[in-house]
Amino acid sequence: MADKLTSRTTDYSKWYNEIVVKADLAENSSVRGCMVIKPYGYAIWEKMQAQLDIMFKETGHENAYFPLFVPKSLFEAEEKNAEGFAKECAVVTHYRLKNDDKNPGKLMVDPAAKLEEELIVRPTSEAVIWNTYKTWIQSYRDLPILINQWANVVRWEMRTRLFLRTAEFLWQEGHTAHATKEEALEEAKTMNQVYADFVEHYMAIPVVQGVKSESERFAGALETYCIEALMQDGKALQAGTSHFLGQNFAKAFDVKFATAEGKLDYVWATSWGVSTRLIGALIMTHSDDNGLVLPPNLAPVQAVIIPIYKGEEQQNAIAVVAEEIQTQLKKRRIRVKFDNRDKFKPGFKFNEYEFKGVPLRIAIGPKDLENGTVEVTRRDTLSKTVIKADQVVDYIEDTLPKIQADLYTKALQFRDQNITPVDDYSAFKKVIEDKGGFVSAHWDGTAETEEAIKKETKATIRCIPLHGEKEAGTCVYSGKPSAQRVLFAKAY
Amino acid sequence: MADKLTSRTTDYSKWYNEIVVKADLAENSSVRGCMVIKPYGYAIWEKMQAQLDIMFKETGHENAYFPLFVPKSLFEAEEKNAEGFAKECAVVTHYRLKNDDKNPGKLMVDPAAKLEEELIVRPTSEAVIWNTYKTWIQSYRDLPILINQWANVVRWEMRTRLFLRTAEFLWQEGHTAHATKEEALEEAKTMNQVYADFVEHYMAIPVVQGVKSESERFAGALETYCIEALMQDGKALQAGTSHFLGQNFAKAFDVKFATAEGKLDYVWATSWGVSTRLIGALIMTHSDDNGLVLPPNLAPVQAVIIPIYKGEEQQNAIAVVAEEIQTQLKKRRIRVKFDNRDKFKPGFKFNEYEFKGVPLRIAIGPKDLENGTVEVTRRDTLSKTVIKADQVVDYIEDTLPKIQADLYTKALQFRDQNITPVDDYSAFKKVIEDKGGFVSAHWDGTAETEEAIKKETKATIRCIPLHGEKEAGTCVYSGKPSAQRVLFAKAY
Repeated sequence: MADKLTSRTTDYSKWYNEIVVKADLAENSSVRGCMVIKPYGYAIWEKMQAQLDIMFKETGHENAYFPLFVPKSLFEAEEKNAEGFAKECAVVTHYRLKNDDKNPGKLMVDPAAKLEEELIVRPTSEAVIWNTYKTWIQSYRDLPILINQWANVVRWEMRTRLFLRTAEFLWQEGHTAHATKEEALEEAKTMNQVYADFVEHYMAIPVVQGVKSESERFAGALETYCIEALMQDGKALQAGTSHFLGQNFAKAFDVKFATAEGKLDYVWATSWGVSTRLIGALIMTHSDDNGLVLPPNLAPVQAVIIPIYKGEEQQNAIAVVAEEIQTQLKKRRIRVKFDNRDKFKPGFKFNEYEFKGVPLRIAIGPKDLENGTVEVTRRDTLSKTVIKADQVVDYIEDTLPKIQADLYTKALQFRDQNITPVDDYSAFKKVIEDKGGFVSAHWDGTAETEEAIKKETKATIRCIPLHGEKEAGTCVYSGKPSAQRVLFAKAY
Repeated sequence: MADKLTSRTTDYSKWYNEIVVKADLAENSSVRGCMVIKPYGYAIWEKMQAQLDIMFKETGHENAYFPLFVPKSLFEAEEKNAEGFAKECAVVTHYRLKNDDKNPGKLMVDPAAKLEEELIVRPTSEAVIWNTYKTWIQSYRDLPILINQWANVVRWEMRTRLFLRTAEFLWQEGHTAHATKEEALEEAKTMNQVYADFVEHYMAIPVVQGVKSESERFAGALETYCIEALMQDGKALQAGTSHFLGQNFAKAFDVKFATAEGKLDYVWATSWGVSTRLIGALIMTHSDDNGLVLPPNLAPVQAVIIPIYKGEEQQNAIAVVAEEIQTQLKKRRIRVKFDNRDKFKPGFKFNEYEFKGVPLRIAIGPKDLENGTVEVTRRDTLSKTVIKADQVVDYIEDTLPKIQADLYTKALQFRDQNITPVDDYSAFKKVIEDKGGFVSAHWDGTAETEEAIKKETKATIRCIPLHGEKEAGTCVYSGKPSAQRVLFAKAY
């Protein structure tokens, strides 16, 4: 398995695709651009969902579910949003099939079952949700509404890649309604911070928090907060976004509320989302030429026990030790698997779990049995340690958080080494072309400059960072004044 | 709230619809036949999902995710299945919208973006999944495959009702692949038993386990196991089904495996599912003329604490007691809410939680403060008990399982009183017409008799029971021999 993996330096893109498929995370389906998320990949998504769901509820949100379909008249109500998604919409036009008389055994769309109004398969749910909120909101007493939805959405992308860009993907979308601008802005920032916390502490991926330039904003938003991560090939990846939508959707759907003072005002909105794309970020941040590397906090299996034996007697003796370790680890809520399958050899299993990124491997052989030891191997460093069997449970419990922290530190160092401040445009182009990563440069704030740089270098403004010092300077492209440096990069 | 509820005897159907909407469970959306599941309704679904997911994993299943869309050519591959769903399919025919030049600001389907092959929005996923399994299965070593999917599906029903029958609904669908017929049959039975256990122990709804007659089977199945419940209006509700699919899908998608003996054989299949329809069953089984009644095992809030006070001083003094009780209940993992909102009066809150079916209400007033007591009210019986405040935590912990058990017993008694054995057709018709419920009668096993009875009485065969004694007799309709009684009823 592992020995056949393309190396990152040979072809990063191929390396990524091979890991996704060979580690049994996902595969392309027979439906153009849609993926099958396989059990091992889905188990990672479940871990992500579970933790995010806790964090959403801790910040006062509830889950609900809104329709998959958006009638065209609702879809087009908020013009900028509609314009942003119109070109990538799957459209339902009919509601019935019938027998195709010319091709016995085949079906055809029944022309008599044409819908009066076409239905858009949701690319995002602002329209259908704000049309619903309209009936829920009369007065300030009905606010805020803090709702999240776990759902599938469809965006008809022409060029797709597993997890990173697919026609259908899974995500969560928060949609909140507020009485004041300040409260909505605060909500958008809070959720961006929740995303940053999740991605840093669970995915072990450092992120830069920032806001998007106007041209990179979500269609229909007044401000888009985002978290940006850096992949090992020097390209940036937008890991999550949180939008301050102002009163745009309230105006499009005529959602007004009576204020405490008895006036009528439009409701303020936010929306925020992360998707299965995060799994792509997870893979590209930590994995290596031996395959997947998973942070312990999200690994479906945190430790695997592999017995090495000849004959049934040895197998049984080792199983006694292995099962005891397994029991003890489970008591400490560690996700452990004892792989006692007889039809595969230890070497095969070593490769398999290494390739699948299981953080810790515990090998127990006949000599270990004699010496009362086991051999523990870390996936991230591939370093081996022989320790007493009666200390292995403590050791595993201590080592998992260390691996989690080490993965983060390693990714942080890489990221920080790849934020390059530049002060003239030729250096800018050279860094984007040769070194990659984030370029920290002054920008005059105009869409024209942004567009010109994008055209010439393929680099886009990933974000205007929220934190860090803000020194003034002159635009790397136009020489005009600039209030702070922004981050440019080529991006996924 | 509650006083406006239509009573069950006045109009059962209206009573149901009012509970769903007024208890904030769900509402109709602007999309024909699609519902919005509101936070309170979705919280019940989350509890169901969490428990079912545990039970699926305990029986060896993993979750995965397959595409929303089924290309028409895959959809029609298994003919019976295709025929069964063809008339209720939402069909995607285009992948882009464009500006409607005749109507500025409006969008229209872009005729240039017509799909080469239409995509069916999945009404069920056998086709897309078996087309995938084809590439996963080569040998007996790849079997069994035990996969479940949590997903939305669409069936274009003409007459819809919230939760019971909607164009889009949420469900889980298990899809398993096996090397032998016996193993697949065993799996189908096991999952039907899992459903029965879940519905009885968590939803407190008694069910009859059985198999469907041929005409009531899932399209494409060789045998459909089911659990059937009885609602308070005497109509039956199919709560879950588990299908033995034989080799039908393997043949349709050419999925063969090498057996241990080196021969090639088609793979054996099952599929099984329950949906948000279960929420409809939950409502109709336990609720009363005062509103929703929820079994404690699935109630989002199991106990609510309501303070009764005049002035801030009393409010604060009561809050100290209430918060202590809340803390202690939370420690015992009881889902408790302390409703200290000042803008609503106690009477309003009493009505609200009663209507929303919260199993236990703890009221604390100034006299309780003096006496060191609280008043606890059971939602199911509306009975009140005054007890010492320092005993309330134990009392709540003891009472919740009692309520759970009592709800089940009550529903079981009702169900058993409404299974009526009949031996002649005039009695059959009379019971179906007047009393309702299940009619236990002999049937000759033919589709003709089944169809004739359905036409004349609107009663269908709900199931051929798996358990209980099997005495022979003569068909209530045709007088021909019958091997065992089957259950007829009008059904949802």
